[in-house]
Amino acid sequence: MKKSLLLLPLLLAGTSVMADQPRLAVVSLEQAQRMVAAAVTECNAQGYAVSAAVVDRSGVLTAFARHEQAGPHTVGSAQRKAFTAASLGRPTGELASAIAANAEIDGLRDMHPDILILEGGLPLKAGDEKIGGIGVGGAPGGQLDAACAQAAIDKVLGGA
Amino acid sequence: MKKSLLLLPLLLAGTSVMADQPRLAVVSLEQAQRMVAAAVTECNAQGYAVSAAVVDRSGVLTAFARHEQAGPHTVGSAQRKAFTAASLGRPTGELASAIAANAEIDGLRDMHPDILILEGGLPLKAGDEKIGGIGVGGAPGGQLDAACAQAAIDKVLGGA
Amino acid sequence: MKKSLLLLPLLLAGTSVMADQPRLAVVSLEQAQRMVAAAVTECNAQGYAVSAAVVDRSGVLTAFARHEQAGPHTVGSAQRKAFTAASLGRPTGELASAIAANAEIDGLRDMHPDILILEGGLPLKAGDEKIGGIGVGGAPGGQLDAACAQAAIDKVLGGA
Amino acid sequence: MKKSLLLLPLLLAGTSVMADQPRLAVVSLEQAQRMVAAAVTECNAQGYAVSAAVVDRSGVLTAFARHEQAGPHTVGSAQRKAFTAASLGRPTGELASAIAANAEIDGLRDMHPDILILEGGLPLKAGDEKIGGIGVGGAPGGQLDAACAQAAIDKVLGGA
Amino acid sequence: MKKSLLLLPLLLAGTSVMADQPRLAVVSLEQAQRMVAAAVTECNAQGYAVSAAVVDRSGVLTAFARHEQAGPHTVGSAQRKAFTAASLGRPTGELASAIAANAEIDGLRDMHPDILILEGGLPLKAGDEKIGGIGVGGAPGGQLDAACAQAAIDKVLGGA
Amino acid sequence: MKKSLLLLPLLLAGTSVMADQPRLAVVSLEQAQRMVAAAVTECNAQGYAVSAAVVDRSGVLTAFARHEQAGPHTVGSAQRKAFTAASLGRPTGELASAIAANAEIDGLRDMHPDILILEGGLPLKAGDEKIGGIGVGGAPGGQLDAACAQAAIDKVLGGA
Amino acid sequence: MKKSLLLLPLLLAGTSVMADQPRLAVVSLEQAQRMVAAAVTECNAQGYAVSAAVVDRSGVLTAFARHEQAGPHTVGSAQRKAFTAASLGRPTGELASAIAANAEIDGLRDMHPDILILEGGLPLKAGDEKIGGIGVGGAPGGQLDAACAQAAIDKVLGGA
Amino acid sequence: MKKSLLLLPLLLAGTSVMADQPRLAVVSLEQAQRMVAAAVTECNAQGYAVSAAVVDRSGVLTAFARHEQAGPHTVGSAQRKAFTAASLGRPTGELASAIAANAEIDGLRDMHPDILILEGGLPLKAGDEKIGGIGVGGAPGGQLDAACAQAAIDKVLGGA
Repeated sequence: MKKSLLLLPLLLAGTSVMADQPRLAVVSLEQAQRMVAAAVTECNAQGYAVSAAVVDRSGVLTAFARHEQAGPHTVGSAQRKAFTAASLGRPTGELASAIAANAEIDGLRDMHPDILILEGGLPLKAGDEKIGGIGVGGAPGGQLDAACAQAAIDKVLGGA
Repeated sequence: MKKSLLLLPLLLAGTSVMADQPRLAVVSLEQAQRMVAAAVTECNAQGYAVSAAVVDRSGVLTAFARHEQAGPHTVGSAQRKAFTAASLGRPTGELASAIAANAEIDGLRDMHPDILILEGGLPLKAGDEKIGGIGVGGAPGGQLDAACAQAAIDKVLGGA
Repeated sequence: MKKSLLLLPLLLAGTSVMADQPRLAVVSLEQAQRMVAAAVTECNAQGYAVSAAVVDRSGVLTAFARHEQAGPHTVGSAQRKAFTAASLGRPTGELASAIAANAEIDGLRDMHPDILILEGGLPLKAGDEKIGGIGVGGAPGGQLDAACAQAAIDKVLGGA
Repeated sequence: MKKSLLLLPLLLAGTSVMADQPRLAVVSLEQAQRMVAAAVTECNAQGYAVSAAVVDRSGVLTAFARHEQAGPHTVGSAQRKAFTAASLGRPTGELASAIAANAEIDGLRDMHPDILILEGGLPLKAGDEKIGGIGVGGAPGGQLDAACAQAAIDKVLGGA
Repeated sequence: MKKSLLLLPLLLAGTSVMADQPRLAVVSLEQAQRMVAAAVTECNAQGYAVSAAVVDRSGVLTAFARHEQAGPHTVGSAQRKAFTAASLGRPTGELASAIAANAEIDGLRDMHPDILILEGGLPLKAGDEKIGGIGVGGAPGGQLDAACAQAAIDKVLGGA
Repeated sequence: MKKSLLLLPLLLAGTSVMADQPRLAVVSLEQAQRMVAAAVTECNAQGYAVSAAVVDRSGVLTAFARHEQAGPHTVGSAQRKAFTAASLGRPTGELASAIAANAEIDGLRDMHPDILILEGGLPLKAGDEKIGGIGVGGAPGGQLDAACAQAAIDKVLGGA
Repeated sequence: MKKSLLLLPLLLAGTSVMADQPRLAVVSLEQAQRMVAAAVTECNAQGYAVSAAVVDRSGVLTAFARHEQAGPHTVGSAQRKAFTAASLGRPTGELASAIAANAEIDGLRDMHPDILILEGGLPLKAGDEKIGGIGVGGAPGGQLDAACAQAAIDKVLGGA
Repeated sequence: MKKSLLLLPLLLAGTSVMADQPRLAVVSLEQAQRMVAAAVTECNAQGYAVSAAVVDRSGVLTAFARHEQAGPHTVGSAQRKAFTAASLGRPTGELASAIAANAEIDGLRDMHPDILILEGGLPLKAGDEKIGGIGVGGAPGGQLDAACAQAAIDKVLGGA
């Protein structure tokens, strides 16, 4: 980013300056773009038309790609799986299994409009810190979606 | 469409021109109108007041009809069944059975605001390609809705 | 796509087969991915952190990228500008000027939840046919967003 | 409707019976279907790809049709114009002019999520009683949308 | 209603006139107001603070009352129960039992944003015709809500 | 309320007990019901079919009534006017005038989904304390709505 | 609050004055702030990053705090648990258990958009009167969330 | 945070580990809590009952406080002002002035559901980097809200 951004006419006031704030790790856009491309490619090679999304630690969309043949619902499913994995810090498949085994926690589905408890979302971490999530939707089975997500992580981030 | 559409005053700029793009099959409006009419008529003949909807491959509404006695909820149920069948490429009744047999995929219901996993929606296909969906709602049983949807397909598109 | 997709266990029924349907041109995922990357890169080179989105003719998201420093509102603004340009087939800046000059059409803003009448969205066309849209958000001025969108079109699609 | 509808297994209880209730006039489905078809046809003949919707006195959708080339936003604009004309009992163009002349009533736009104050919606009446509305969206100018709506009324309902 | 309503300044145009339209029975406001008052009073006498709502055949709210001690969620639950009973023409308790016995129809919950499958909503009928619904929420058990709704029907409409 | 409410089976735990909390004045249901009835009656006598709503200090609906001929949008407009007057503690007409005179505060319309800046809502107060609001919608002019709201206040609460 | 608030320029009219209204107990802001801080601190001491919310008797947010490491979904889960406990007057864990044991009341989840039936929400009461609720979300188990909520009540309100 | 968080039963898999990720500065919860408390206190001292919110760089709520007498709309207005200032990196009052002077950018209001272009929101920055926002709502004038927000920044962060 050029420095000139901060000198543009509309930006009239610097309202506060804080130094020495705590800092948190993030996924870079370049990593995110490569991951969604890798996930769509991997699933396509398996014969599935999918969407893939990467969100940051706050669940805000960073990168997204959808195969031309993937249904419009995958725009929602990929993003929500990514949000859920990022926000809870767990694979969405684990959460789905936990709910299936315990009806008292079915309410997990209703915590937030972007939660989707369905296999195919994986958290992204820097060490122990959760820093984002990836979600894939459109394959005929969540385990297939999750495999493409994992393949993307492996390819871009190099192992776990 | 007349060519003059592109010459209207508000349309000032042609911002891009692409040729040789890939092309995907679509349902025509005439087909869609005949299908929703046929579905409502078929159900009415059976004694049921229903709504029927046809959406395109992206889930966007193409045609809709509602019997005067059909409840307002059928505006939603017919469209969502059509969206779901179009986007996933499967009869919604199949999806409902699959979820009933496997609690771990209950999250399919939450993938997108327009998903409705309830019998009465059927995909429309051109060969292997999914190109839209039809949904019927209002009969006292999803299998009755689905039968009217199938009758409409048979009548308008001539067999499976 | 492998043929095996259509043979997966959950896909029990082929409910309809239509041949000789009309076919409409589409943006390919590869084109969309290259365009959003080009738009973000172009704006970054200018000193602006932006989001960019490409949607298909139905307004469904195809590709998206957001600079790490771009605010969360740009997830909405980029997509809505793309939707608006794709659905109306015009640059969103033209629409904004038209409304500013005529209060009676201010309602254009309220036609659909994804409409955004703000410069930075451009339609994508194959000849005269509208086939999608690109939207950019985050630069300190819509004309700057639009320039990055145009640069992406020029780079990927080659000319106007 | 066959009487058998009321004998279906799920319908266990007649919870109340009222006689001699007041009765209100409604648009029939047959009228509604013919009107939306006429409006789309009329606009197509003019060179415009539009959507058309008819709603009942409560604003609930009765019939809808969309030209294959009409943008996805017209699904919303046609229905909302119809809702607005039906609920307020006035042409939406009149309301747009009234707001443009008086900023204090701009809040009319925010009364209900389905309100759209933009030319192209006309009320349907039985004598003095408002019984529904028709809305058209997609032409490059609200007066063009309104003309197609009026043509549909003239053709189907015969007279003013 | 005075005739003068139709002569007010803003009402410039009679856009259509239809005669001999079909007519459907409705609940009067006076009946609706008495029913919601009766339901709240009956539940209060039982020791429960509730909300009560009556909607018309289209599910549009006609009358509503809430006890000062009834929680804010009852604003939603009473209206949604009334909507559901009116739109489907059945007691909501029946629907809840049917779903509990058959997981394949769980999707009934998702047909429309105003559907609530929970005991406490009863349809209002004129002979065989469904003309509206009443819903009660806030008692510690749906059967208690339903009893207050039934008491209101009995008091105002005089038996079943 | 009977004491038995607190002994029902589902109510297992008293989780906290606070005494000597501050107490705030509220509108009673009986007052609210009389006000909405009075407002609808007053407007009907003037020739207008309207809806009227009373909300408490938190903007939660307490009572509502709609004339059979009032459009469905009035369900929203009456409630939102009441919410706005209650939450801001001012007549909505004053707010509409203030915005019309100062474009910089147009954002007031967007503060909350239930805000409606349109004449016809009045605050209810106990001394200086705002304790609720009344809103009327459906008359052909906000000043007419406001007059019916004021008449209801005068009739039920006796003077200003 | 200074008296001058009521003399500000925009506040032109006192539209009504009621005296001797009933009065209801409320949670003070000071209590609410101390409770959310205590809940976050308690959970942090246990090793969990959570959000905590306190709402008033109408379910309106009074105070909120989120640990920097707590996921964005906890903004929703904490508030909705608090809303649910406040509005129904019961611990949300009790409600979750009741639904798990009786599928016919699963509809409780759909009563209102802010309902969340998941352990971690507790009602706040003044004697028998429900006056608000506290909700905690983010710990890996609802019983852990609830323990932090109870600890906050104990610390600030001094026992049950 | 204790290390034990990562050993809880539900957390079965570490799906990825990234090191050396870029890191971004954040507002701490302690700073956020002190800022919202300071803003409410400052406005109360001026005679205004307000809400105050602090959000992080992604617009996710970090801390919130509402005066008991502040209307429910302030829950929305404070959060949305904070979101807007954080996401765009500018005081919301500047944006309101810019729109008032240029109707072509009125669409800024519609970029995202959480945008509110109304004075009273200020960005929080660490050097040149935007790291969050604070919003205040409820005072009878946006400049009064903004003054309380600035006072909170000055008190907690110490200078500009």
